Parts: sequence; C-alpha cells; structure tokens
Amino acid sequence: MNKESAPIGIFDSGIGGLTVLKEICKKLPHESTVYLGDTARVPYGIRSPETVTRYSFENTRFLFSKEVKMIVVACNTASSVSLDAIKNSVPVPVIGVIEPGAKAAAAVTGNKKIGVIGTEATIKSNSYARAIMRIDNSIEVFGIACPLFVPLVEEGWTKGKIAEMIAQEYLKEMKRKGIDTLVLGCTHYPLLKGILSAVMGEGINLIDSAIETAGEIETILGNLSLLNTAGDNMRREFYVTDSPEKFRTVGEKFLGEPIHHIKKIELEMEV
Amino acid sequence: MNKESAPIGIFDSGIGGLTVLKEICKKLPHESTVYLGDTARVPYGIRSPETVTRYSFENTRFLFSKEVKMIVVACNTASSVSLDAIKNSVPVPVIGVIEPGAKAAAAVTGNKKIGVIGTEATIKSNSYARAIMRIDNSIEVFGIACPLFVPLVEEGWTKGKIAEMIAQEYLKEMKRKGIDTLVLGCTHYPLLKGILSAVMGEGINLIDSAIETAGEIETILGNLSLLNTAGDNMRREFYVTDSPEKFRTVGEKFLGEPIHHIKKIELEMEV
Repeated sequence: MNKESAPIGIFDSGIGGLTVLKEICKKLPHESTVYLGDTARVPYGIRSPETVTRYSFENTRFLFSKEVKMIVVACNTASSVSLDAIKNSVPVPVIGVIEPGAKAAAAVTGNKKIGVIGTEATIKSNSYARAIMRIDNSIEVFGIACPLFVPLVEEGWTKGKIAEMIAQEYLKEMKRKGIDTLVLGCTHYPLLKGILSAVMGEGINLIDSAIETAGEIETILGNLSLLNTAGDNMRREFYVTDSPEKFRTVGEKFLGEPIHHIKKIELEMEV
Repeated sequence: MNKESAPIGIFDSGIGGLTVLKEICKKLPHESTVYLGDTARVPYGIRSPETVTRYSFENTRFLFSKEVKMIVVACNTASSVSLDAIKNSVPVPVIGVIEPGAKAAAAVTGNKKIGVIGTEATIKSNSYARAIMRIDNSIEVFGIACPLFVPLVEEGWTKGKIAEMIAQEYLKEMKRKGIDTLVLGCTHYPLLKGILSAVMGEGINLIDSAIETAGEIETILGNLSLLNTAGDNMRREFYVTDSPEKFRTVGEKFLGEPIHHIKKIELEMEV
C-alpha cells in the first residue's frame, strides 16, 4: 500500500464522530477510512482528563496498527484533554476538532462574543476558549455544559417541546450575554441544529466543527501530498468495542447511509 | 477478622448504587461496607450483555479480594444480565436488586398490572417480567426504557416542567395500560419519586428496589448467622475507577451524608 492510498484513521468515544466521518466522505470521497468507536466506554464527556487520555492512547495505538496516514480525533472531549499527548505518541499527523471549530468561530463573529456548548469535560477544559483567544484575545467566550443533549439526540427527540425546553434552559445565559456565534462543541449536536437555531433566534452563526475539520484535513493532506486523488481501493472500515448492533442502528442515522462490516475489538485486553 | 464482622461488598456502574447503600446503612447500621463504583465505564445500561458481564466479573473479583462476606449487585443492569454468572464465580452469597423488587411488586399489585421502568439493557433483558411471572404468571408486566432519566437526575433537574414533560412522555403508555404498580428499575430513579407519583396520579404503588434489597440482605445474613450484631470496627470504604471528585459531589446527594476515603483503582489493569 503506498502512502497516499493509506486510510485516514478516525476515533470517537462512540457514534458521535460519525458526523465528522460524514463530512470527510463528502469533502474527500476518494479517501479510505478506518473508524473506531469506543462504545464499551462511551461517554467520555463525564470522565476525568486522565481516564480520557488513557482511553485515547489505546484508540490511537489501535488505529496506528491499521497503518493509517493520519489520525482524526473526532471527539470534542478527547480533543480537548488529550490532543497534545496523542500528537507526541505517533509519527503521523494528528488533528482534533477544536482548532478548526475555533478558527471558524473567530472568523465569523461580528460582536466578538462567542458561546460554546459541549460535554462537562470539554467545557471544563476551556479548550475552545483558549484556541479562540490564541487567534484574537479580544474575543469573549462563554461556555456551558449540556449533558442532556447527547441522550436527547440518541433518543431521537431532536424536535418538539421537550428538546426546545431543554435548549431554552441551557441557552438562556448565552442569550443574555448577546453572543452572535455558537460553537457546537460536541459531535452529537449537529443533529440539534434546527432547535438550537430556533431557540437562539435569527442572526446566530452555528459553527459545526465536523465541517470545519473535514476542510482542515484536506488542507493538511494536500500540503503533505498525501491526498488519494486516484481513489484506488477506497474502503470504509468500522470497529467498535461493544456489540455492533446499536452502533449500526443509531449510527446510520448519524451517517445518513448504511454501515457495513463493523467489527468488535477489545482494547483493554491489549494493555 | 471473624466472618460476622467482615464487610458487605456492593458494586454499581457508578453512583446510583448509593441509593442501595443508603438503605443498607439505615436497616443494618452495624454492618461495614465496601462500595465499588465503576465510574470509568459508567453507564452500563447502554451496553451489551457480554460487556456488562465482563465488567461485573471484574467488579466482583475486586470486592472478593476485600474479603467481603456477601456481594450486592446494586445495579439493575448488572443484576439483569449477569447475576447468575456472578453467583457461580464466588463462594459467598450474591444478591441483586431485581428479585427483591419483583417480589414486592407482585405482593402489592391489586389489578395484576405492573409497569417497570429502567435502562435500555434492563428492559431488554426482561428480567423483572420473568421474576414477577415466576411468582404469579397471571400478572401482566409492561416495560419501558427511560434513557433520559439518569442524566436528568445527575443534572439535578428532578423537579419542574422539564422533568414532568419527560416523565409524561415515557409514562403515557403505562397510564393507558392502567397499571397500579410501578417498579423503579434503576437505582437513580428513587430521586424522581415525587415527579413519577405526580405524573402517574393517586393510587399508584412505587416500588423502590433499594429498600426491598436492604430487607432481603438482612434476611440472608440472618439465616446464615452472619449479621454483625456487635458492630465491631464498623467502617465504610469507597472505591471508584475514575477520579473521586465527581463521585464525591454527586454521590453525597444520593447518600445524603458526606463521603470520606474514596480510593481510585484501575480494574482493567488487573486482567
């Protein structure tokens, strides 16, 4: 296998990262991908940085064993707390979802007030605020953890009164602050775009890190002459750490197409 | 250490089992306890039976290494899918939360229509229905998974409009069926008793497995002459698999008293 036709490796704590895979498939349809969802230990957003970093290392090592040419940390929590550690552990480019999202948010805000919503771990880490303020330290960033959004999405309740009331409750502080840009700092949240934009009202910019990350991947692979322009032997592989069944049913909603060839692996056993 | 003064071992996927510990402390104040919360891999309710069983074995082995005189599986999901396997793996009595809850529900129902709410894994396993119908197979049992209840409790939103609307949504089928008894088949749910009884209306029997399980533990230890009537060296130990901080803050709400001496352990490393 030559270097260009090697797959892109992507991991997430579960199915959420499929929103990132979806954008990669759209933007770079010739690229092969290996996706790992750590479904036996999902969700990462409620765990400590040390535990998330340990899990991220195991995921990275697994993807690297699949001879990937690049690793995408398609999980806001893992990107927030363990990206630098992962970067130092493998000799291929590693990209997370925070920087691309932060860059897009900083570029689009008019009044320099940006809101970030995500898991408890992502918000606590302050990773978006740091990334945004490295670009422009006159921007104010407000973060709020929204732990009910992930189960809401997985339950399929992305529309209707309950979703609206939960969004109202979480976002009332953001509205009071007068933000003009809202970063969806969790890979599940793009499925809530409709309700979030309705609750925030007209004129709000919603930043979807998945889209921004796919763009950044194209740039990085292009710079390194690693784009698979020929599209030889394009393939999609999926690995999970728990039973593939739920991953398949819920995952197809995220990806918007059928998922084949899901293989279950046991990461801890490799320690 | 003589056998009577040995501690009772209790495990749960996280903090929920503290509602069971609380009832044990109330009913058997002289007993020492060792509690293990597998917070690095919580929640179990979304995982496959195989994965939950693997985690349960690791938890059991850890508690057994602490020389406990009995093991309490204070987690509805683990009790539902792995109790028999655990029972066969250690030479001390093992008790789950399903049988005691089922027994109490079967005893109290008047119209022989019982509802069970719990995690996806507990409901899918049909464990309550099987246990209830072993007692009286003329009883009808209706189960519904309520995945939003656990994050709702952990968010502290146990009262108010949002909790009420979610409960209305989950329970509307139960109300239509005309159940007179509702089993709280998840250790988090006792914190939702107020809203559940308001939504179900007058005359509903709410069965709290935690209370029933504490009663059953007393019976079993009494029969085996293992009750610590002297109350020598009473102690409470807590172990978690992720950082103790969140366990402490959220856990104290569950237990209703301060939690001291929480120690972090790594279960997978012992494989």
